[in-house]
Amino acid sequence: MVKQKVLSKLKERIEPESWAEGIEMPLELMGATHEDPAVLADIAYRSIITARQFDRDKVAQLCRLAAKYETAQQTSQFPLTGKILISAFYEPSTRTRLSFESVWHRLGGDIISITDPSTTGIAKGESYKDVAEMMNHYGDIVVLRDSNENAIFEMVESLRIPIVNAGNGTDEHPTQALADMYALFKWRPELITGDVPEDKKITVCVIGVPGRMRTVRSLLYFLAMFSDAINEVILVCNMKNPFSDGQQKELEQAGLKMRVQPFLDDALPSSDVVYINAIAWVGDSYEAHGTEYTLNASSPLKEGSIILHPLARGDELSTDLDDTDHNWYFAQARGAVYVRMALLSTIMRF
Amino acid sequence: MVKQKVLSKLKERIEPESWAEGIEMPLELMGATHEDPAVLADIAYRSIITARQFDRDKVAQLCRLAAKYETAQQTSQFPLTGKILISAFYEPSTRTRLSFESVWHRLGGDIISITDPSTTGIAKGESYKDVAEMMNHYGDIVVLRDSNENAIFEMVESLRIPIVNAGNGTDEHPTQALADMYALFKWRPELITGDVPEDKKITVCVIGVPGRMRTVRSLLYFLAMFSDAINEVILVCNMKNPFSDGQQKELEQAGLKMRVQPFLDDALPSSDVVYINAIAWVGDSYEAHGTEYTLNASSPLKEGSIILHPLARGDELSTDLDDTDHNWYFAQARGAVYVRMALLSTIMRF
Amino acid sequence: MVKQKVLSKLKERIEPESWAEGIEMPLELMGATHEDPAVLADIAYRSIITARQFDRDKVAQLCRLAAKYETAQQTSQFPLTGKILISAFYEPSTRTRLSFESVWHRLGGDIISITDPSTTGIAKGESYKDVAEMMNHYGDIVVLRDSNENAIFEMVESLRIPIVNAGNGTDEHPTQALADMYALFKWRPELITGDVPEDKKITVCVIGVPGRMRTVRSLLYFLAMFSDAINEVILVCNMKNPFSDGQQKELEQAGLKMRVQPFLDDALPSSDVVYINAIAWVGDSYEAHGTEYTLNASSPLKEGSIILHPLARGDELSTDLDDTDHNWYFAQARGAVYVRMALLSTIMRF
Repeated sequence: MVKQKVLSKLKERIEPESWAEGIEMPLELMGATHEDPAVLADIAYRSIITARQFDRDKVAQLCRLAAKYETAQQTSQFPLTGKILISAFYEPSTRTRLSFESVWHRLGGDIISITDPSTTGIAKGESYKDVAEMMNHYGDIVVLRDSNENAIFEMVESLRIPIVNAGNGTDEHPTQALADMYALFKWRPELITGDVPEDKKITVCVIGVPGRMRTVRSLLYFLAMFSDAINEVILVCNMKNPFSDGQQKELEQAGLKMRVQPFLDDALPSSDVVYINAIAWVGDSYEAHGTEYTLNASSPLKEGSIILHPLARGDELSTDLDDTDHNWYFAQARGAVYVRMALLSTIMRF
Repeated sequence: MVKQKVLSKLKERIEPESWAEGIEMPLELMGATHEDPAVLADIAYRSIITARQFDRDKVAQLCRLAAKYETAQQTSQFPLTGKILISAFYEPSTRTRLSFESVWHRLGGDIISITDPSTTGIAKGESYKDVAEMMNHYGDIVVLRDSNENAIFEMVESLRIPIVNAGNGTDEHPTQALADMYALFKWRPELITGDVPEDKKITVCVIGVPGRMRTVRSLLYFLAMFSDAINEVILVCNMKNPFSDGQQKELEQAGLKMRVQPFLDDALPSSDVVYINAIAWVGDSYEAHGTEYTLNASSPLKEGSIILHPLARGDELSTDLDDTDHNWYFAQARGAVYVRMALLSTIMRF
Repeated sequence: MVKQKVLSKLKERIEPESWAEGIEMPLELMGATHEDPAVLADIAYRSIITARQFDRDKVAQLCRLAAKYETAQQTSQFPLTGKILISAFYEPSTRTRLSFESVWHRLGGDIISITDPSTTGIAKGESYKDVAEMMNHYGDIVVLRDSNENAIFEMVESLRIPIVNAGNGTDEHPTQALADMYALFKWRPELITGDVPEDKKITVCVIGVPGRMRTVRSLLYFLAMFSDAINEVILVCNMKNPFSDGQQKELEQAGLKMRVQPFLDDALPSSDVVYINAIAWVGDSYEAHGTEYTLNASSPLKEGSIILHPLARGDELSTDLDDTDHNWYFAQARGAVYVRMALLSTIMRF
C-alpha cells in the first residue's frame, strides 16, 4: 500500500523544506536578544566537555548564532576549508555522528572517522593518552563519544587541539542539551533573556534519572542557568533519590527548584515542557525507566505544552503524537544541527 | 613469481588508461542521438526507486550524458560543492557504495556514510520513518541499500530530499540496470534510438530468475522500453515459472518477447548479449541459480556476442574470458560510474 | 583527580603546538642537503611496494621534502583537489589509516574508504584482480593494508593507478620505515648525506625479528642504504637466525654490519638509537618477542641516545620514558604524517 502510494507520486518534484514548522521561530529568537560576539570569544579554541563550562550569556549567544544559521539561505562560504575533524565514536552512534559530520562538511571541512571501535588501538589496550598524542598530528579538532566516562578527561590532558564531548558514559552530553535549550528558545524566545514575568515562567517535566543519564544531567545544568524562567522542574522517576553525589545541591544552589514525582500522569497536566528520553537505548540512557512512562495522544498533556526527545525513540514516545502541536522533537532534531554548527564554528574561530 | 614480475616493473611510470577498449564507443553513442535536456528535467529533484519511472527517452538521454562524462577530460568543475550525500548501506556493498561515493566526490560533493548496520538505530528498532526524518536535516540526497525491500518506501514518505535506490531486497536495483543498458549502447549505439532494422535486432540471454533477482528485474523493465530493438529475451533458469506476480504480463504488454530455457548451451549460440549474475552473492542475487550455469572460453558463445555481468563475480564467469572480445563486463563496470554521475548530477540540477 | 584538573583548566585557550620538540630540527635537516627535484621524478606516478625501490638520494630528498612540509605554515594550497584516494584497509589499522587520510585531506583530496573487511567482496571470495579492476574506475590512487602478503602483488598487475603499500602481511611497511628514517635525520641531520666521519657514525639497536616483522624488514633496507653512517646494527632477539631467506646476505652486501644479541641490556649501553616495536600487536609485529624486552626509565640507555617506536605501544615501552630526552617516538609519529605527505604529493605530481 505504502509502495503503491509512493510509486504513484514519483513523478512529483520534491520541494525541499523551506519554511516548515519551527523554522520561522528562529527569527523571533534573534529579535529576543542582541548579538554579542565578545561573549563567545571565551569559547574559541576551547574544549567542550561539560554543560558547566557555559553560562546564561554563552548559551543565549550560541542559540542566537544557531538561529542565524538556521534561517540563513545556504551560503557558499566554507570557513573551515582545509580543517580536519577527527570523528571518534568509540561508542557507536549514527545519529550524533552524522549530525556532527554534516555540520562540519556544511562549514567546508574534511573528516576522518573512527566508527568501528573493535579494530582500534583502544580495543587492544592502547592508552587514551597515546591516542590523543596521535590525534594532535592528524586533525584540528576531535569529537569524541565513549562509553568510558573518563576517556575524554584522559585525552584532553595530552591534546593540543580542542575536543568536544559527544557523550561520555553516563556523565554528560552537553551538545545534546544545548539542542534541547535551543528548541525551548525557538518555542518561547522570551525565555532566552532569563528575565521572565512570573506568569510566563514555565514548568518543565523531565522523565528520567539525573544521576544516571547523561542527557538529563547536562540539560539540568543548562536549566539551572535559566532558573529565573522556570517555576519548577518535575523529575519523573520511580527512585526516591535519583541524583548523583552533590548533584541536587549544586542545582538548587544555582536556583533551580526541583521535585521528584513517581507518577507521570500527575506531572503532565501542569507541565509546559515534557522532556522524555529513550527507554532502552543503552548509551544514551543507560537506564530503562519503566514501561509505565510512555507518552501518547491520550496522555493528559497540558494544552500548548511541547514534548522534547533527543531521539532516537523507542516505545516511550508514540508516533500518534507526531502530527500534534506537542511535537517539537522533530524541530529539536533539526535545531541540533544548527546548534552544533554554532558551537563548532565558534570553537574554530581562532 | 607474480611478486618478482611486479618488483621488476616498479621503475616504470604508470600510464593512466586514456583510450582503453570501450572508451571510444561513447563518442559513437553521442552521435547516435541528440542532446535533449528537457527530457531530463523530469528527473531533477526526484527520488529514483524503480526502473519503471523511466521511459525510452529518459534512458537514452541519461546514457548520452554518461557518454559525455566518460569521454570528457577530467574537469575542474565541481557542481556539487557543499552538497552532502548520505551514503546509507544498511546492507553492506563495497562495490556499489564506492561507486556512488566516487561519483559524488568527482562532482565536488561531501559524504557522510553509514557502513556498519549493526550499530545503527535501525538495528535497535528505530523506525525507517524516524531515520528519514533525521536524514532530512543532515544531507541533500540519500543513497540507500537495504535488504528490506520496504525500507525505501517507508523512508521516502518522510523524506523531503531525494533518495536513490541502490538495491532494495529482491525488488530492484535500477542504477545497476542503467549501467547494463549503457554498456549495451556503447557496444551498439544504434540500439539507443529503439528504431532498429529487423536484421540488427538483438537476442538477449539473461541467466537468472526475474521474480527473485533485483538486478534482473530492473534490467527487464529497461529492456522492455527498447523492445523494438530486441528479437527476444531468453531467460535461462531451471524453474518453469521464474516470474513474480504479474511480472510476465507487464513485460509482454510492453512489447518484450520472452522465452524460458533451462539449458544454457542451447541459448548461447543465438544470443548477441549474455547477461549473467553472480551465483552465490546473497544480496545481489538471493539465489544460487545452479552450478551448471557457468560461462568460460569453451562455452558455445556466438561470434561477436558480448557478456555482461554486474560483478562481483563468483565461479559462474571464468577469468579465461577476460582477455576475449566477449568481455564487456569490465567496460560495463567502468560505465556504471558515469551512468551514476549522469543520474546524480541530473537529480541535483535544481 | 584528572577530571577535576581538566575541569579547572577548561577556561584556558588551547594553544596549538607551534615549535614543540623536534619541530626545529627539520630546519637543520633542510640545511644538511640541497633540494633536487629530479631525483623524485622517478617516483612520480609509481606504485610504492617495497623499501628496495628507493635509494639513498630518494630517501634523502623525500625526507627533505617532509621537513619542508613540517616547517611550513599551514597553506591554502590544495594540489590534490578533485583527486580520490581509495583507502583500503582490509587489515584494520586506525593509526596508519588516519595518518594517510589526514595527509590526503591536507593536500585537498577526497577519500573513499574500506574499513570493514568482513563485508567486502574479498571476504566473499572475489579475486584481488577483480577488486583492482574496480578500483581503476573509482579513484586516483590506492593505499592498501592487507594481512595477505600477496594481495598487493596481485592487485598491482591489474591496476592502472598507483598503489601504496601500508603493510602487507609480514613482508614490508615501507612508509613506516621512511618515517623511522625521517626521525633519524631530524635528530642527526648530518646522517642524511651518508657521508659521516668515523666518530659520528651511529650504532642502531633493533629489537625484533627481521625475518618476520614488516616494519623491521623495511627499516633494515633503508638503513643499508645509509650503511656508511652506521657502525653496526645490533639485532636483539632470542633466535639464532632471525632472518628470512637471503635477507642477511642482501643486507650485508649492501654494506650493513649486523650482529644478533639475545640480551637487551648488553646492547643498550653502546646504542645511539634503540628501535623497538610493539610486543603483541598482531599485524604490526606478528610476533611476541618476549616480555624480557622492555624499555623503561631504568634501562641502561646510553646518554644522548634516542628511542624510536612505530606505535601503538604495549608494555614493552614504559610511559616513564615519555618525559625523558630519549623520547623521539612522539616526534617520529608526528613526522610520519609529513613523510607520507611528501610521498603522496610526489607520486601524484604528474
